[in-house]
Amino acid sequence: MTVQDPTSYALTLSCPDRPGIVHAVSGALLEAGGNIVESQQYGSPAAAKQQGRAEQPSGRFFMRVEVATSSPLEPLRGQLAPVAAEFGMEWTLHPVGAPVRTLIMASKEAHCLNELLFQQRSGTLPITVPAIVSNHPELAEMAAFYGVPFHHVPVASKAEAEQELRRIIEDENIELVVLARYMQILSDELCRDLTGRAINIHHSFLPSFKGARPYAQAHARGVKLIGATAHYVTGDLDEGPIIEQEVIRVDHAHPSERLAQMGRAVEARTLSQAVRWHAEHRVLLDGNRTVVFS
Amino acid sequence: MTVQDPTSYALTLSCPDRPGIVHAVSGALLEAGGNIVESQQYGSPAAAKQQGRAEQPSGRFFMRVEVATSSPLEPLRGQLAPVAAEFGMEWTLHPVGAPVRTLIMASKEAHCLNELLFQQRSGTLPITVPAIVSNHPELAEMAAFYGVPFHHVPVASKAEAEQELRRIIEDENIELVVLARYMQILSDELCRDLTGRAINIHHSFLPSFKGARPYAQAHARGVKLIGATAHYVTGDLDEGPIIEQEVIRVDHAHPSERLAQMGRAVEARTLSQAVRWHAEHRVLLDGNRTVVFS
Amino acid sequence: MTVQDPTSYALTLSCPDRPGIVHAVSGALLEAGGNIVESQQYGSPAAAKQQGRAEQPSGRFFMRVEVATSSPLEPLRGQLAPVAAEFGMEWTLHPVGAPVRTLIMASKEAHCLNELLFQQRSGTLPITVPAIVSNHPELAEMAAFYGVPFHHVPVASKAEAEQELRRIIEDENIELVVLARYMQILSDELCRDLTGRAINIHHSFLPSFKGARPYAQAHARGVKLIGATAHYVTGDLDEGPIIEQEVIRVDHAHPSERLAQMGRAVEARTLSQAVRWHAEHRVLLDGNRTVVFS
Amino acid sequence: MTVQDPTSYALTLSCPDRPGIVHAVSGALLEAGGNIVESQQYGSPAAAKQQGRAEQPSGRFFMRVEVATSSPLEPLRGQLAPVAAEFGMEWTLHPVGAPVRTLIMASKEAHCLNELLFQQRSGTLPITVPAIVSNHPELAEMAAFYGVPFHHVPVASKAEAEQELRRIIEDENIELVVLARYMQILSDELCRDLTGRAINIHHSFLPSFKGARPYAQAHARGVKLIGATAHYVTGDLDEGPIIEQEVIRVDHAHPSERLAQMGRAVEARTLSQAVRWHAEHRVLLDGNRTVVFS
Repeated sequence: MTVQDPTSYALTLSCPDRPGIVHAVSGALLEAGGNIVESQQYGSPAAAKQQGRAEQPSGRFFMRVEVATSSPLEPLRGQLAPVAAEFGMEWTLHPVGAPVRTLIMASKEAHCLNELLFQQRSGTLPITVPAIVSNHPELAEMAAFYGVPFHHVPVASKAEAEQELRRIIEDENIELVVLARYMQILSDELCRDLTGRAINIHHSFLPSFKGARPYAQAHARGVKLIGATAHYVTGDLDEGPIIEQEVIRVDHAHPSERLAQMGRAVEARTLSQAVRWHAEHRVLLDGNRTVVFS
Repeated sequence: MTVQDPTSYALTLSCPDRPGIVHAVSGALLEAGGNIVESQQYGSPAAAKQQGRAEQPSGRFFMRVEVATSSPLEPLRGQLAPVAAEFGMEWTLHPVGAPVRTLIMASKEAHCLNELLFQQRSGTLPITVPAIVSNHPELAEMAAFYGVPFHHVPVASKAEAEQELRRIIEDENIELVVLARYMQILSDELCRDLTGRAINIHHSFLPSFKGARPYAQAHARGVKLIGATAHYVTGDLDEGPIIEQEVIRVDHAHPSERLAQMGRAVEARTLSQAVRWHAEHRVLLDGNRTVVFS
Repeated sequence: MTVQDPTSYALTLSCPDRPGIVHAVSGALLEAGGNIVESQQYGSPAAAKQQGRAEQPSGRFFMRVEVATSSPLEPLRGQLAPVAAEFGMEWTLHPVGAPVRTLIMASKEAHCLNELLFQQRSGTLPITVPAIVSNHPELAEMAAFYGVPFHHVPVASKAEAEQELRRIIEDENIELVVLARYMQILSDELCRDLTGRAINIHHSFLPSFKGARPYAQAHARGVKLIGATAHYVTGDLDEGPIIEQEVIRVDHAHPSERLAQMGRAVEARTLSQAVRWHAEHRVLLDGNRTVVFS
Repeated sequence: MTVQDPTSYALTLSCPDRPGIVHAVSGALLEAGGNIVESQQYGSPAAAKQQGRAEQPSGRFFMRVEVATSSPLEPLRGQLAPVAAEFGMEWTLHPVGAPVRTLIMASKEAHCLNELLFQQRSGTLPITVPAIVSNHPELAEMAAFYGVPFHHVPVASKAEAEQELRRIIEDENIELVVLARYMQILSDELCRDLTGRAINIHHSFLPSFKGARPYAQAHARGVKLIGATAHYVTGDLDEGPIIEQEVIRVDHAHPSERLAQMGRAVEARTLSQAVRWHAEHRVLLDGNRTVVFS
């Protein structure tokens, strides 16, 4: 790429809604020599007072822009900063396609890990994976096949295990943690520290069948569809902001073991989709809900 | 049709599982000059002891057969009775396509009623509708268009309203009651009396969002799919055996009113599908689960 | 509504892509006191030379904005006109929710007509229907139920029938013509005159099974999914720009009559969805492809 | 497993339809001490005369039974043989879950191969893979990871390459050949010899977009859903009996490269589903259509 070739950047922002945001942002981008390739906006309505829950959406404006410009990253950031300050924006700016440094955590089941690593290698998931952490040794061979360092961190003491995990996150400059059927519960403190940077896959269509053994619960209830939910991790287990959900049809003849088997394919692709959207900077937080500019 | 032309019958049965059932049934049908056109079987595994819930499936065998024969209904019934007795069967026998006498209950919203009546008139739903009961007058005009007697039964007193409802059910020889967004809760006693003969549509993907205002709940939780559930009515509200479920994709930009609007189409077709399967004698009860031979 | 209450307008535009479009449009809207509620953009890449087909996309920019402002329609139009001229835009501006005057054409089958009229009455489809035209008398009763004038226009002579149709379109100021399983082929000349203003439903997943008896074709081929396609009408039958498609699963046991029956539900909702998007000004034409800002 | 433990067998059969088939089969199974666990039947209607195409269905009866018995395979086969002869049956009998010896052919793209090998290793696909054949060397590393012998068979001469392929099929007692995005066309003669034993994945929703570059075709036509088709191989390219099809939603903003990328996931799971059904002996041939007892 020569100096004249334009780069594409993804700009995401949110701020209190008021007239003039789009004009100001597009003006700053125009001054930076940028051409808007793709753009989406959403104004979250102010919450009705009687609902009064803190996590309700409340009059914020959300925007994602892909802009092509020959300006390098830092000068562009500088040109946007005054606009961001004026409107009180939370904002991010990344070159499109720049891989997100991702740590994957798993236990024994390989289906989610396999999907993420295969997609990554195929070039369809803009992440790099500098580390896999597992509380079991079984997945070391798969990690080796994909050339990813494998850290076996048993959970004899949760505090020590999390300390080791934090060390790896820091050493490897991890931007995103993916719980790919990691069968341990993280401490509240770690969940808080990873807010907006950790994605979990739950093997049910939340909020149905929270907690343990969701396929056995689904079988006992006799549901006709089973599903999976990818969500950001919060201290409140299975209650974090939902990024993506999918379902498949089942019938009376499927025992719960078969549901689990069928469900694995859905888990893998739901998680992979959520990671892709996150890594493409398409997911913004609106209280306990997500705005997904897919 | 002359006397020699064969009729198709739908035979459904369930009984404790043991060898020889299919052979005995097919033998009796063969003696009656019958040719098996379609058949499905399912053996529900005996429940593991540690689960020990009464409503769990427990070693029963389920079968549905469509058989073509020139035998009239009653003699055929007579030929099957000894086999049924030998194996301790619960069983039904109906001419295929014979319309099921169906009472539809609704309140103000027309979408489910419209779907059922339109499908019935189009010949794609094997029911007749001798009566519509509503606690409001608004749907009388639609009933008139489809030529169905409309009974406005306000619920000042639930006991009196249900007495009137029972009278209509008896007078009209009703075989199936469909709650097509009827916004009143039936008494436990009536629910018990209608066991296996009343279908309700709930406007969520059960067991998510039970109870009132499910679309508002779905919006607050930020789910990415919404759905509907058609189930048999039991005394335990929103807990009856599920017959059919469907979902559609929604996103952050849909307020809960729009979810409700989008959901109506899903409710209408989920309910219509469940009524079709019931009226074609494709749904059998296995404790609190359904076996659907679709 | 008092004079100060803002109205929402939907602005759609397309023009050759170049920097500054979003900034110019958002500036004009800001000057008109507008607040952007929702916005979507898409830049269609310039067609590669070797493909060289005239209907290929070619470097155009597409945009749809919903803006809330207290400005009335005509002054707003006046403020946008210079920007539109500067960039060579094709553009439209409509109050959001203003009903589109729609003529529905049908023959004998009622399912698509019923869906459109029911949705319209329910308030979920922003159209008014001043006229139904049919080459058969059967659907007159349904038209009467919904209070829509019914024109029986037999096709003894296509020229005369189309003359009558053109008269109704003119008299009723029709903005959109919907072919809701109308079983006659319009003349090339009429198709051309209705370009971008007429939507047809084809009962297959195009381009599979063009032409007559698509369900029989689908059955003979043994496909596992059947579908429907809503598209704009062009002189080239079954080749117009596709607006929406849907499929459902079928299996070996379904004869082609059953496929037709199952397919009707898909046709009705595919057509209804396409009409909704058109009436909400969400569909723009990019050569022979559509841009749908759903 | 001791001698008394019952084994499950899958029996599939087809024959001209007439009364008594089910009774005779269930009688033979009962004599063999068998208990029917699962059973499905289907009677294909006789083709209407005016259609008169040789590959049309024609009055055949299809059945699949899972039966649990302590009888070993060969004696059970002996007990069924007279019934099969009486009714002129084509039939197969396999222990349930016995792995099918499968040869996978691929070129450079790994997604289908990866899916099949991962499912196989996870125990969700009842196959063994004694050999992978490719006309390119790129997939050797993946084969090694899964411990499968990799045969690089370049296609300088198709005749020689096919001779080598036939040798591997014979040496390894291959029962099923899967073309997992193998980008060479097999000769008519080999296709004929593999009839009913070779499955291909085509990267479009057939019969749409036959032939080369289907995603580019789909993009040019502006379809709103793309799909994949798994079918048995016949001499007539892209025309073999369809086993399974799936689609996903796309929109105007996806260039054809993105369609190809999204489509790969659909191809992989459509092929994997078809192979599972085949390996579970759930697919029977009815002329050019398949009966799938899923």
